[in-house]
Amino acid sequence: MSKDYYIGIDIGGTKVLSALADSEGKIINKAQNPTEADKGEDVIISNIEDSIERVIENSKIGKKEVKRIGVGSPGPLDLNKGVIIENSNLAWTNVPIVEILEEITGIEVILENDANAAALGENQFGAGQAADHMVYLTISTGIGGGIIINRKIFHGGKGNAGEVGHMTLIPDSDYQCGCGNYGCFEAVASGTAIARRGRESLTVHQDSLIYEYSEGNPDVVDAPLIAAAAREGDQEAIRIFKLTGQLLGVGIANVVNLFDPEIILLGGGVMHAQDLFMQELKASLKERALKPNLKDLQLKEAKLGKDTGVKGAIAVAMCDYLYQNQ
Amino acid sequence: MSKDYYIGIDIGGTKVLSALADSEGKIINKAQNPTEADKGEDVIISNIEDSIERVIENSKIGKKEVKRIGVGSPGPLDLNKGVIIENSNLAWTNVPIVEILEEITGIEVILENDANAAALGENQFGAGQAADHMVYLTISTGIGGGIIINRKIFHGGKGNAGEVGHMTLIPDSDYQCGCGNYGCFEAVASGTAIARRGRESLTVHQDSLIYEYSEGNPDVVDAPLIAAAAREGDQEAIRIFKLTGQLLGVGIANVVNLFDPEIILLGGGVMHAQDLFMQELKASLKERALKPNLKDLQLKEAKLGKDTGVKGAIAVAMCDYLYQNQ
Repeated sequence: MSKDYYIGIDIGGTKVLSALADSEGKIINKAQNPTEADKGEDVIISNIEDSIERVIENSKIGKKEVKRIGVGSPGPLDLNKGVIIENSNLAWTNVPIVEILEEITGIEVILENDANAAALGENQFGAGQAADHMVYLTISTGIGGGIIINRKIFHGGKGNAGEVGHMTLIPDSDYQCGCGNYGCFEAVASGTAIARRGRESLTVHQDSLIYEYSEGNPDVVDAPLIAAAAREGDQEAIRIFKLTGQLLGVGIANVVNLFDPEIILLGGGVMHAQDLFMQELKASLKERALKPNLKDLQLKEAKLGKDTGVKGAIAVAMCDYLYQNQ
Repeated sequence: MSKDYYIGIDIGGTKVLSALADSEGKIINKAQNPTEADKGEDVIISNIEDSIERVIENSKIGKKEVKRIGVGSPGPLDLNKGVIIENSNLAWTNVPIVEILEEITGIEVILENDANAAALGENQFGAGQAADHMVYLTISTGIGGGIIINRKIFHGGKGNAGEVGHMTLIPDSDYQCGCGNYGCFEAVASGTAIARRGRESLTVHQDSLIYEYSEGNPDVVDAPLIAAAAREGDQEAIRIFKLTGQLLGVGIANVVNLFDPEIILLGGGVMHAQDLFMQELKASLKERALKPNLKDLQLKEAKLGKDTGVKGAIAVAMCDYLYQNQ
């Protein structure tokens, strides 16, 4: 009896990575190409195609043994139609990626929101394996979320549930979000919000290390620069991270009160600075979450790291329940 | 073949209502008793028992034909153990209601949070029948919520999901919630919040109708009094309802972005004043919710009204999936 194999594809702005896994999800081979995002849709597709072909060839299996391909992409997506409505990394609009890749490969393709895919990957292969109910949050330039209910991705009525980053956290904030709304969780507590607070500080705290490191140039102020200043004891930088930690705690408490998960997993680039905000995050979570929901809750760091994209896509490929409106 | 029957019990602060329904959920008979909440646990239980016995007798069926009894209660509850941890209407603490009623009746009993039961009732018999994914909100002295996913009550990991009223909406608010936290949805947008704003206005707006109707006595200022003032054109009262409507819209938008429901149902006493805040609620919802989540979303009034408690309890009795960690 032939074994089933699955391919997960992580289509990033700079590289396309395909990985082939066995029926346990164990990665057997990877194949990487540059994305060449600036060369347009056809070149990107051809780079994806090449990575798929190579990963199959290198694994010395037949194409027919690949049961399904999973693709993770930032949204908005139309999951039912398999269309990437917009992916700013690739400058794509309305690309029917499922249809295109199915035609090229002859293999069934499933598209999923990248944060959802990451959540499922962590649930199947990462730090969330113990949980039936889990929430994954990625805190980087934005805040993305994936909700796992009964070990499945929660899609809601139209496939767009779990938009944790777009929960309004401060209704009267003047921090505008990419979505157009003001005071979204991601507008006030992401790496972008940290950077904005750092830029705002330049005019009032010219004695700070943020000012010194950036030479007063707002364009170079980002979260890592502010983290470096905080680690050297700069009070303004420390304040910015503490405030952000408090707000992260408020947003996570809301998720805990609404979803009552067993595990909350935190990933994303801002976690590199967790020493600067985790204490405030936990204090604020404890203050805001209901006691019964807080009981036995595990707050953990996501584990898959650089492999999140591709392992999430493999987890998606291995599912046969998707699009059943869970 | 004998038909199955179900009993739903609504245990209120003043009356106990039992209703017996057929296997389609159609109510055949009701029996009501005073709760006599002040007379203690034994008397309350005996009033419940009597209402159950009478509703069975009056229906001229045998006790054995009653397949299950559903009980709705405000929380906190321990659903798995069937224990009412606290019910302030009845002055109950740690009452193992399921065990007690099963022993008395010999019939299987299921306990459920009253807002969850109401949500399921609306989904099965009320204004939410068209939806697989639905959120029910009751806006009265507090804000309660019940989340329906795939036509089932969403419980989360420990049975405490859907605590919509305890999502923090204004982190720096000085409006303290019953749960101890500040700025909860229910602390800033319930009937209690409306009343508090009215009381606060007494010292600064002594020319308002709120002041006139209450004769300056904060103890008599409640949401209906402020609504009456608003309907007579009182600017301060109108402002209070508009502000509350805006905040209701923010909270509902958060729910829409997180759960992507097909229908949002609004119930509870504050809805009697919906003419005073619904426009602001809708505007704020539209401003804050993501476009894909807003598309085709139905915002409707709950339909079961006075029967919500008992019909919700019947819907709970008719379920056999509860406690399977959905």
